[in-house]
Parts: sequence; C-alpha cells; structure tokens
Amino acid sequence: MILPAPIQNLIDAFSRLPGIGPKTASRLTFFLLNAPEEIAGELSTALHELKANTVDCPICFNVTSAGRTECEVCASPERDPGLVCVVEEPLDVLAMERTGGFQGRYHVLRGALSPIEGISPEDLTIRELVMRVKAGDIRELILATNPSMEGDATAMFIQQQINIPGVKLTRLARGLPTGGDVEYADQTTLLRALMGRQEMN
Amino acid sequence: MILPAPIQNLIDAFSRLPGIGPKTASRLTFFLLNAPEEIAGELSTALHELKANTVDCPICFNVTSAGRTECEVCASPERDPGLVCVVEEPLDVLAMERTGGFQGRYHVLRGALSPIEGISPEDLTIRELVMRVKAGDIRELILATNPSMEGDATAMFIQQQINIPGVKLTRLARGLPTGGDVEYADQTTLLRALMGRQEMN
Repeated sequence: MILPAPIQNLIDAFSRLPGIGPKTASRLTFFLLNAPEEIAGELSTALHELKANTVDCPICFNVTSAGRTECEVCASPERDPGLVCVVEEPLDVLAMERTGGFQGRYHVLRGALSPIEGISPEDLTIRELVMRVKAGDIRELILATNPSMEGDATAMFIQQQINIPGVKLTRLARGLPTGGDVEYADQTTLLRALMGRQEMN
Repeated sequence: MILPAPIQNLIDAFSRLPGIGPKTASRLTFFLLNAPEEIAGELSTALHELKANTVDCPICFNVTSAGRTECEVCASPERDPGLVCVVEEPLDVLAMERTGGFQGRYHVLRGALSPIEGISPEDLTIRELVMRVKAGDIRELILATNPSMEGDATAMFIQQQINIPGVKLTRLARGLPTGGDVEYADQTTLLRALMGRQEMN
C-alpha cells in the first residue's frame, strides 16, 4: 500500500533528522494528523524562522538573534572578558551555562579538527580566536573541547598557535563522572582519574 | 542565559511531540541550525501540507490524499469486500499491510472505548461500521483492536451491536510473540498462549 503523498513526505522529512528512524517518523506524523492543527503549524513556523532569524555572534561565533550586533554573553558587562571558554558547538555553551559556575565569555570553534571527516583548521574559527587573544585582555583560555581524539587534537593545535606570555591555557579535568562507578569505568577514564588524583584536605 | 527566540521556539515546538524531551528537542534544533537549509525547509513544508492535503476515506475512515473520493484500498477491485479488518488507528492499517497477508478491506475506528479518557461509542466510527455491515456484502469482520482492556472492550461492544446471521466476527490470535521467550513472557500472555494452544500436525 502506498501512503498518501502528504503523509509520506512528512515521514521522509522527519526521518532525515538524527536519531529519528522510519518508525518514530511515522509515529510523529500520525500523532500530528490527530493533534490540533496549531501543533504542526507552530512547528512549521518555527522551522521556517530558525535560519532566517538567527546569526552568528561576530565575536564568539555562538548563535544569536538576528539584529543583535553581538550575543548576550559578549554584550554583558558582568561577564569577565579575561576568561574565555573555548568550546566546539553552541550546545556546549548551553551545557556550560547550565552549570551556573562560569562567569567568563566563550569562543565557539564550530567543530573540531578531524582529518577523517576532512575538517581542517580553516573550517573552524581558530584564526579568529588567535586574533582575539592577540588583541589583549584575555588572561586564561579554558580549552573545553570534547574529551575525545578530535577534541584533544584541536586543543593541542590551539596550544601551538597561541604561545603568548601572560595567557594561561587550561583544559577541563578528566576523571570519573559524578554518579559513576569505579567498577564500570572504562580503562582510559580510570587511568586519567588515577593520574589526576587530588589530595584530600 | 536566554536562548535566541527562534531557537527556543523550535525547541518548544519539538518538545510538544510525543517521545521528544527537551534534550532531544535541542539536539534536533542545533542539528538543523548547522544542516543545509532545505532540510528544515522541507520539514516545514511537509508539516504545513499534512492536514491541508489529506482527508478521511468516507467508507473506511483511513486517511487518504485530498481529492480522492475513497482510499486506495476501498477503490481497489482486487481487495475482497467481504472481509473487513476493524482497527483502531491508521497506523494499524500500515502494520497489517506490512504483513502482506491480508487481502480484505479495512474499517478504522479512530480510537478505542475508554471511560477514563472519556471516549464513548459516538466518538468512534462504530455507527458507520454497523451501517456498512447492514448494507450487506460483508461475511467476516476481523476485530483487530489492540490486545488491551480498551481494545477488548471495544471489540465486545461491536459484537453486541452487530448480531447479524451470516456475518462472522473474529479476533486476532493471542499468544507468545515470535522471537519471544517463555521465561520472560508475562503471566497473562502465557495464560492466553496456553489456552489457545494448537495441535501440531
């Protein structure tokens, strides 16, 4: 049986999203078919406006509302301009903000170096980061790229590029995740936790 | 930190869908932000056209393309009009069609009786089903409502309404699912499998 085209089109469009297979896509589609019209309508409008109404902040490259000259964090006088957290993606900024423990500013690289995926330094905002540091004012860069091969390589590459006295480079701590279990920790994580052990006070 | 409105709107719109929490919603949103524009565009268009371009088949109440007088199954001369499978939702029709083992037609109830959710016979297409059976031609109704309290109650209600000599009423078999495990089968399933045991040939 062939599904009516409007239904098949929506199933296909949902299936293109990450983590949504054909089964979930058809469940979502038939849910919307029975749901009040505004649920599909609001989603349609929000999708339409997503790209039209957002721009990249010219300072930190986080995503921000169209019409702003810089993002809220870069514009805020309460955020320390001397402390910059370097992350891969805008979602990482969200995660950092959720901790409530960071009062500095950000720099979003827009990815990580990956020879396999063909992502080289020019595809990231590394040059803009170097210029930002050279302009002065920054005393510490927290290289908060992912604790992965690509994230580590990206942090090391940035370290080579930024070799300026008075600018401290740090990396997020590695160890056991809170709520985790020593027994189930993988070898690398446990080794990093051991190497980074802290004296109790 | 407050997210830019276009981003927050899309996260909210995704979160309203079943099975999509705030974390998945923001992952989807930031994926679309980085993805080629047409992925969000096609989804937006498909959502917009979903309700505008679909109608209910006036015979079986399955969903079909706008402009058709009846759905493909009802219109097909190859489908047996004497055998009708009664299901709760359009998705159940899809599941039946996927088996490749059914050559009859359908009747979609658009739900199941549920006093808790306030769904009574008038909310379903039971009256239309009774009229369809009384018009003649149908020799068997397969009551393929879900094997749940609501589905069983709906099947029993239909049985009471349709008491016509020459019209056989059947229900889908209950038992162990293929690939399942006797050890892990729940009590009710195992009891139904035992009661419905079949002689080997």
